[in-house]
Amino acid sequence: MSGYFITLEGGDGAGKTSILQLLEQTLVEKGYSVLATREPGGIEIAEKIRHIILDKEHTAMDPRTEALLYAAARRQHLMEKVLPALEQGKIVLCDRFIDSSLAYQGYARGLGIDQVFTINQFAIQNCMPDLTLFFNIEPKKGLERIIANKDREKNRLDLEDLHFHEQVYEAYLLLVKKFPERIQVIDAELPLEQVKIEVMKKIDHFISKL
Amino acid sequence: MSGYFITLEGGDGAGKTSILQLLEQTLVEKGYSVLATREPGGIEIAEKIRHIILDKEHTAMDPRTEALLYAAARRQHLMEKVLPALEQGKIVLCDRFIDSSLAYQGYARGLGIDQVFTINQFAIQNCMPDLTLFFNIEPKKGLERIIANKDREKNRLDLEDLHFHEQVYEAYLLLVKKFPERIQVIDAELPLEQVKIEVMKKIDHFISKL
Repeated sequence: MSGYFITLEGGDGAGKTSILQLLEQTLVEKGYSVLATREPGGIEIAEKIRHIILDKEHTAMDPRTEALLYAAARRQHLMEKVLPALEQGKIVLCDRFIDSSLAYQGYARGLGIDQVFTINQFAIQNCMPDLTLFFNIEPKKGLERIIANKDREKNRLDLEDLHFHEQVYEAYLLLVKKFPERIQVIDAELPLEQVKIEVMKKIDHFISKL
Repeated sequence: MSGYFITLEGGDGAGKTSILQLLEQTLVEKGYSVLATREPGGIEIAEKIRHIILDKEHTAMDPRTEALLYAAARRQHLMEKVLPALEQGKIVLCDRFIDSSLAYQGYARGLGIDQVFTINQFAIQNCMPDLTLFFNIEPKKGLERIIANKDREKNRLDLEDLHFHEQVYEAYLLLVKKFPERIQVIDAELPLEQVKIEVMKKIDHFISKL
């Protein structure tokens, strides 16, 4: 594969989505061919799966069902969108990927990081990101940003309580230790423009090695 | 768990569904408390997942996505329907369970029986059937029965070609060797009434040991 696969990770309200857009724009201006995406990314089958996961009515959803559905949507999005772009030599920016499942389902929901990693390996077949940017923000601050943003539609996961988001945060810090080369930490409490500069520094550093 | 978990397995057209009804009736007449079910079994989340799997429009469905979706639907059906019935001491009869995934996705689709077993273990957490009845019929004869049955709605999987069904059959024979105690073979080429008698003999034999 000739492309480069970058994932953006972090708790809700960490600013990943805003940065993703800025990042795409900047990389395109620099002459790179870029695909910016997030699961389910307009892929019909993945969209339908995601719809089941996020439906507020599905209060009976078992955590293991949820983890398997995320892995299924991930697989389909990877096959139909991410891999073709990487094969065309593009830089793929993906808002959330395997680490989200490890943090949310594996750790915060208590299924075990290793077990959730196993079902995700079945889904992605070793297609791990080349680089992962972890947007580091205290969960309380992230949640405050979400509450302040009235345009954002709340889904079943946004509505989890603070304790859950703290668990997610703890998990990401563990993952940073577990994958120190792949996962780079970004201070997401800085103003957006500064975060963008920090992110571009990291990306330039890694892309220059290609 | 005080109940007894029986699954019915075999290729399409093996007569599992007809036998399931007869079996339920016979066991109820004998005074047992019985739940007869099949995934997704009216469980809303599992039904929605199954709908995605069987939609004829989803020709882009990747085999690994499909396997993960089956495991997800299995999990939800198990948690909401099978386990509560087993906890109430019922005999649960389930038309298809883990072995279907091992045969169809693991072997016939080439994903590997062990790999598909792994994601299904994540889903069922060692809640394996106490007894599995394999309805043994040559795939060609099974398909002929399906074609003859005009009332039966054809779905994406029924439409697979004969070669696929032969692969599924080969897989079941492997599984019978792999799990010789759990999986009992039923000659499904006999007339329905005789199949029922054979099945009841097997079940009486196992239930008498409880």
